Amino acid sequence: MFPIDRDKFLLSFLGKPLLQHQVEMAQKAGFNHFIFVGNHNNLDDIKTLSKSLPGIEAEFVLQQDPKGIADALVSARSTLLEPFLVINPNDVFSDSAYQEIACAGNQSLPAVSCMLGYKVDEYFPGGYLEIDSEANLKHIVEKPGQGNEPSDLVNILVHLNNNPRKLLEYIDIIESNSDDIYERALDRMVKDGHKIKVIPYTDFWAPIKYPWHIFRVMEHFLDKSEAQISDSAHISDSAIIEGKVILSDNVRVMENAVIRGPAYIGPNSVIGNNALLRGYCHIGANSVVGYSTEIKHCYIGDNCWFHSNYAGDSIIEDDCSFGSGAITANYRLDEANIHIDINNNKIDTGYDKLGAIIGSGCRIGINANLMPGIRVGSNCLVGPHVCLTRDLMPNKKAMPVSYQYEVTDNFPNPKQNKRQELLNNL
Amino acid sequence: MFPIDRDKFLLSFLGKPLLQHQVEMAQKAGFNHFIFVGNHNNLDDIKTLSKSLPGIEAEFVLQQDPKGIADALVSARSTLLEPFLVINPNDVFSDSAYQEIACAGNQSLPAVSCMLGYKVDEYFPGGYLEIDSEANLKHIVEKPGQGNEPSDLVNILVHLNNNPRKLLEYIDIIESNSDDIYERALDRMVKDGHKIKVIPYTDFWAPIKYPWHIFRVMEHFLDKSEAQISDSAHISDSAIIEGKVILSDNVRVMENAVIRGPAYIGPNSVIGNNALLRGYCHIGANSVVGYSTEIKHCYIGDNCWFHSNYAGDSIIEDDCSFGSGAITANYRLDEANIHIDINNNKIDTGYDKLGAIIGSGCRIGINANLMPGIRVGSNCLVGPHVCLTRDLMPNKKAMPVSYQYEVTDNFPNPKQNKRQELLNNL
Amino acid sequence: MFPIDRDKFLLSFLGKPLLQHQVEMAQKAGFNHFIFVGNHNNLDDIKTLSKSLPGIEAEFVLQQDPKGIADALVSARSTLLEPFLVINPNDVFSDSAYQEIACAGNQSLPAVSCMLGYKVDEYFPGGYLEIDSEANLKHIVEKPGQGNEPSDLVNILVHLNNNPRKLLEYIDIIESNSDDIYERALDRMVKDGHKIKVIPYTDFWAPIKYPWHIFRVMEHFLDKSEAQISDSAHISDSAIIEGKVILSDNVRVMENAVIRGPAYIGPNSVIGNNALLRGYCHIGANSVVGYSTEIKHCYIGDNCWFHSNYAGDSIIEDDCSFGSGAITANYRLDEANIHIDINNNKIDTGYDKLGAIIGSGCRIGINANLMPGIRVGSNCLVGPHVCLTRDLMPNKKAMPVSYQYEVTDNFPNPKQNKRQELLNNL
Repeated sequence: MFPIDRDKFLLSFLGKPLLQHQVEMAQKAGFNHFIFVGNHNNLDDIKTLSKSLPGIEAEFVLQQDPKGIADALVSARSTLLEPFLVINPNDVFSDSAYQEIACAGNQSLPAVSCMLGYKVDEYFPGGYLEIDSEANLKHIVEKPGQGNEPSDLVNILVHLNNNPRKLLEYIDIIESNSDDIYERALDRMVKDGHKIKVIPYTDFWAPIKYPWHIFRVMEHFLDKSEAQISDSAHISDSAIIEGKVILSDNVRVMENAVIRGPAYIGPNSVIGNNALLRGYCHIGANSVVGYSTEIKHCYIGDNCWFHSNYAGDSIIEDDCSFGSGAITANYRLDEANIHIDINNNKIDTGYDKLGAIIGSGCRIGINANLMPGIRVGSNCLVGPHVCLTRDLMPNKKAMPVSYQYEVTDNFPNPKQNKRQELLNNL
Repeated sequence: MFPIDRDKFLLSFLGKPLLQHQVEMAQKAGFNHFIFVGNHNNLDDIKTLSKSLPGIEAEFVLQQDPKGIADALVSARSTLLEPFLVINPNDVFSDSAYQEIACAGNQSLPAVSCMLGYKVDEYFPGGYLEIDSEANLKHIVEKPGQGNEPSDLVNILVHLNNNPRKLLEYIDIIESNSDDIYERALDRMVKDGHKIKVIPYTDFWAPIKYPWHIFRVMEHFLDKSEAQISDSAHISDSAIIEGKVILSDNVRVMENAVIRGPAYIGPNSVIGNNALLRGYCHIGANSVVGYSTEIKHCYIGDNCWFHSNYAGDSIIEDDCSFGSGAITANYRLDEANIHIDINNNKIDTGYDKLGAIIGSGCRIGINANLMPGIRVGSNCLVGPHVCLTRDLMPNKKAMPVSYQYEVTDNFPNPKQNKRQELLNNL
Repeated sequence: MFPIDRDKFLLSFLGKPLLQHQVEMAQKAGFNHFIFVGNHNNLDDIKTLSKSLPGIEAEFVLQQDPKGIADALVSARSTLLEPFLVINPNDVFSDSAYQEIACAGNQSLPAVSCMLGYKVDEYFPGGYLEIDSEANLKHIVEKPGQGNEPSDLVNILVHLNNNPRKLLEYIDIIESNSDDIYERALDRMVKDGHKIKVIPYTDFWAPIKYPWHIFRVMEHFLDKSEAQISDSAHISDSAIIEGKVILSDNVRVMENAVIRGPAYIGPNSVIGNNALLRGYCHIGANSVVGYSTEIKHCYIGDNCWFHSNYAGDSIIEDDCSFGSGAITANYRLDEANIHIDINNNKIDTGYDKLGAIIGSGCRIGINANLMPGIRVGSNCLVGPHVCLTRDLMPNKKAMPVSYQYEVTDNFPNPKQNKRQELLNNL
C-alpha cells in the first residue's frame, strides 16, 4: 500500500472510516455484538473509534503477531462463544452482502454455516468455490488457472460460522505455515460432513490491495450516497453545483466555482474561485481547493491545500499542500496504461489515467510536476520547479539543482513603449 | 512550409479545405467546369474532395514532376479546349477576384484575354505589370526593385486565357529551365499583338508562402463569415458568446467560458470551463479547449486537446495535445519581431507576437514551454517540463534530462499548525 | 531599500506620491507654507510635484550631501524664520498626527516647542522620551534596551519648533560626526531650560526602512480610503466587486473577474477575465492583470502586465511584465518566516508570507518561479522556465541553461484513437 501508511480500514469515506461503514452496514443487517481483532499499531485506534459508535457491544482482541485470518480467530478464541460472522474490514461490500448472509443465517441457523460466493464473469486469481447441487461447499480451490474454475463463485470473507468451537478445533489441527489455514480447515470440515451453504453474491465487492483500489471504493461510496447540502454551507451565487454533491458543515464554495457530482466535500473545506471539481471527487475536512484549481477523479484527505493546480486521478493523504502551478500528470504521452512497481514487479494498474499517489504530510512546491503513477512517501518535500520522475521514499526531499540557470549582464532594454498601444487594443 | 506537411490548398478554413473555397467562389462567378492539376501525392485527395462538391464537372490531370504553372498547363494540354481561367489555389482571393475576371471575360471574349493586376501601395518583390493607355499588358517585369516599378499593379495568377491553343504554342517555344516560362510566353504573345486586358484588383489577396501566412487567410475567412450557432450546439447559461462566432454542430461551451469573436469552432468541439478565446480563433473539429485555457489568435486543427494552457498567435495542426500548464510564449522579452530561419536565412515574420507552429500528431507535456516562433515537426513529442528553445525536426522527442533535481533526507517538518488559522482567514 | 530605486516619499499610494499625501495631511491641519529639503537626485522631482499641488507656498532647499536631519535644517537655515514643523516624509502617520501637533502648537505657541511621542506596547529599538510630570521632555535615550525604557513613548519626527534660531544655535555647537546631532541639540536645549512638550500619539505610524514596510503603508492608505467607482470605469456584468474597492478612470474589469476589497486600481488599468484580487491589492495606472491571474496582497506599480500568474505578498515597481504562468512563491515549505539579507545580516521580515520584491523595468519569462522573499533589481530579465533562487542585482539577466533537455528519435506514436471516446465522456 506504499505510500499510504494508515490501516486501510481507517481510510475515511464520506467522513467516516471504512471500519465504521462496515459496522453500520452490519448493524443494519441486525448484528450488534462486535469483536475487533487488531494489532499493536491499530488496536487503540479501533477502540477509540468503536467508542464513538452508538448501539454496539464491543470486545477487543490483540493479535500479537498478525498472520492471517486463522490466527486472528485463534487469538479471539475466548470471545467466540456463539455463531459469528467473520469479515475482513479491508474488503468493501455493499449492504446487501451483510443482509444476504444475515438472512441466510436466520433461515438455517444453528444447523448450517453460510458463506457468500462472489459471482465472476471472467477469471479472477483467487479461491474458487466448488459446490454440490444443493449449493453446499465441497472444496475451495486456490487460483485454479483460467479454464479450470470449478464454478463461477469466488471465495470472499463473508462467512457465518454456526459453531465456533468446532471451527477452532479444525483450525488447531491444520499444520501449516502458509496463510491458508482457515481455508484448509473449512475444506476439512465439509469433507467431514459439516455443511457450509454457499450464497451467490453479485453486488459490489472491492478488496483494497493496492493503493489505486481506493478509487473503486471511493466511487462506490459516492454512487450510493445522496446529495446533501449542509445548512451551514455557504455557496456563492455565481458558483454552480451540479449532480449529486455532498457539502458538509461550514463548507464554502467561492465565486464561479463549479462542482460536478458525484462529489463529497468534508466539513470546513473551501472550494475556491473558479475551481472545477469533476469526475468523482472526494475531499476531506479542512481542505482548501484554491483559486483556479481543477480536481478530477481524486481521493483527497483532510487538511490538504491546493492553489492553482491540476490534480487528476490522484490519491492524496491528509496534510498535504500543493504550491501554485504544481501539476499531477495523469496520462502518458504514449497513452499506455500506467504500471506501478510493487516489489520489483511492474503491475498494470488497469488505468490509462492515473496521477500521483501521495502519503500524508507532503508539500509540493510551486510549478512542480509529478509524472503519472508516481508515489511520494509520507512527509516528503518536492521542491519548486521539480519534475519528479521517480518515486520518493518517506521523509525525503527532492530539490532543484542550483545550476539550471546562468546570470549575465542584461543589455539595456528597449523602452516598453508598445504597451500603451497593446493596452488600447485589449 | 515546415512544419506544415499537408498541401496548403487542403488546409481547412471554416470547416472546408481551401480548395473547396476556391471552387465555390469560382462557381458563384459562373465557372462550372474544373480541371484539377495535381501530383502523385495529392491527386487522390483532390479527387476525393471534388467528388463531394455538388454541381461541378471535374477533370483531373497528373503533373508527373511539378515544375511550375507552364508545365501544369502543358500537362493539361488535352483538356484545354476552350477559354479557361487559371489560378493557383494556394493564393487566396476574395470572391470579387473571380467575379471581376468573369465579368471582364464576358465583355471581351472571345477577342481578348484578361488578367487581374493587384494594386499595391508599397513595393512588393513580385512581377509588375507594364500596361498601355488602354490597360493592355505590355510587359511583365520581375522584381524591378523599389523605384523602378512600371506601374502599381502586381501580377497575380488570376488569368482568363481566351485561346488555349495559342497560349500553349507560345509556351512550347520558350526555351528555359527557370520557373518563368509562363510569364515569358505571355510577354511574347503581347509583343506579337495578342491583347491581354489588365483589370486592377484591390480586394483581399494573400499567398501562403510561409506558415505564418495562414494567419492572414484565417482572419480573412473569419472576417467574411457570418455569426452562426448550430441548433445542436450547447452553451452553458454562464458562458458568454460575444461578437461574430460560429459554433458548429454539437459544439459544447461549458460554464464560465468566454468566446470573443471573430471565432470559428468546428463540429463536436468542446470549449471547457473558464476558457477564453479571443483575437481571431479558428478551432477545428473534435477538439477540446479544456479548463482554464486561453486561446488567442490561433489556427488550430481537428482533434486537438488543450488543458489549462495558453496558446497565443500559434498554428497547430491536427491531432496535437497539450498537457496541463504547457504554454506557447508569443512575445520576446526584448519586444523585437520574431524571425524564423528558412534555409539558413532569418526571415522577419513581421510579427512581434508569434507563438509556436506545430505539425500534426504532436504531444506537448505538462508545463512545457515553447519559445516564440518555434517550429515542431509532425509526430514530435515535447516532454513535460521542457523549455523548448530550438526547432524540432519531425518524429523527434525532447525529454527533460534526469539530473535536474537531487534527493536528500528531509528534516522533520514542523507541524502544519498554521493552517487552521489560515483557513479561518480565507 | 534595494531593489526599490526611487525615493520612498515618491512611492505612489492611491494614485498620489507619498509626499503629496504628507502635504495634504499638513494642509488639512492648517499648514500652508512648505520648505522642501531635497538632494541632487530628487529636488527636481519634488519641485515638479509641488507645483501640481494647489494652495501651497513652497520653498526648496538643496542639501548638498545628505547626512541627517540636523544637516537638513542647517541647509535650510535661511528659510527657517518662523516656528516650523519638521517631519520626515518617509515616515507615514495618520492625519491625526498633524492635527494633534498643530492643536498643541496653537495652544502653547510661541512659548513652547512640541513633539509627538509614539506610545508603544512592546520594546522598540528607537529613541525613548524621558519626560517630567508635566509631560515636558527631559532626555532622549537612544535604544535603551528592553527593561530600561524611561517611558513608553518613542521619539518620532513630528516636532514643532517654536524658535528656529535657537534650535540652529544648539545644532551648531554640537560636535559630532554621528547622525544624532539633532537629538543631542534637543537634549541640551531642554537641559538649559527650554521647554519641549511631549504629546502622546497612538494612531498609525510606519517608517519605511526596508522595502517590505511598503505593505503596512499600502494597507494604511487602503484602510482609510473610501470605495469609489469612476463613472468611466467599465465593469462586466459577470464581474464581482466586493468590499471597499477604488476603480479609477477608464478601468476595465472583464468577465468573471473578482475584486475583493480593500483594493485600489489606477487609471486605465485592466482586470482581465477570471482574475482574482484579494487581501489588499494596490495596482497602479496602465497596468493589466490578465486572464486567470491571482493577485493577493500586493503593491504593484504603473504599467505592469500580468498574464495567468500568481503574485502574492509581492512588491513590484513600475514597468514590469510577467509572462504566462510565472509565479511568485510566497510561503516557505517549512512555514518559517522569510528572512532577507541586508548588508550580510539576515533580517527577519516578520512575514511568513512574502513573495518577490522587484525593481522597475523587469521582465519575467513564462513559467518562471521566484522564491519567497527574492529581490530582483531594476531592469532585470528573468528568463522563461527559470526557478530564481538568488537575488539579482540590477541590469542582470538569468537565463535557463540550454542542456536541460535532450532530443532523440521518437518511436512512432500509437494512433490517438482514444480521443473520440474521451470526448464523448466529457
